[in-house]
Amino acid sequence: MLLDDSIVAAIKWDAQGLIPAIVQDARTKQVLMMAWMNADALRKTLETGETVFWSRSRQILWHKGESSGNVQILREMHIDCDADTLLILVDPAGPACHTGETGCFYRTWGQFTGRNFDDI
Amino acid sequence: MLLDDSIVAAIKWDAQGLIPAIVQDARTKQVLMMAWMNADALRKTLETGETVFWSRSRQILWHKGESSGNVQILREMHIDCDADTLLILVDPAGPACHTGETGCFYRTWGQFTGRNFDDI
Repeated sequence: MLLDDSIVAAIKWDAQGLIPAIVQDARTKQVLMMAWMNADALRKTLETGETVFWSRSRQILWHKGESSGNVQILREMHIDCDADTLLILVDPAGPACHTGETGCFYRTWGQFTGRNFDDI
Repeated sequence: MLLDDSIVAAIKWDAQGLIPAIVQDARTKQVLMMAWMNADALRKTLETGETVFWSRSRQILWHKGESSGNVQILREMHIDCDADTLLILVDPAGPACHTGETGCFYRTWGQFTGRNFDDI
């Protein structure tokens, strides 16, 4: 039993019962995405060894890669000092982003805004 | 002007007017911490070139390293595909965590819970 009540109680869930999970490539260290987990998603992630999130927009559990095949195999999990954020290291079977990009953070601030830091 | 109204409007702030900001060491690629920014915190980060967050517990702007000296110098900023999470690459002047650890994610799941992934 990887996630009993005492462990669930030790995690600082937000008001919606969620915790943010940062997903990082275990090999390249690229930050791939951030998504949210409720206790069920975390339990399924631990049980299956693949990331499962809670989709806030669709209000369902979301097994990453279920349709695309781009699953993320769990390698390491860390929790931060105040137990309100997870860092999950994975081996990704393919791109993390629905756009086909390796990770969701492919846009720099300059690309997003047309402004660079020295444009003040 | 690095953060005018059109840029603020393009960011998907949460119901509290916040966006999560993942902070990664630009050199080592270690994920150091996650914190939250409102528009003022983001504006000050861009203007000063050092990370400034919104403290949800204290409800004030929080210039990281203001008291400890462990500021984080802005190197790159990225935004994710749905514009609701920031990834900020920094040069840290010292530990990111208030415990003195380099980053806040120093506890593995096994250390936090006493359970390993193969304990099912």
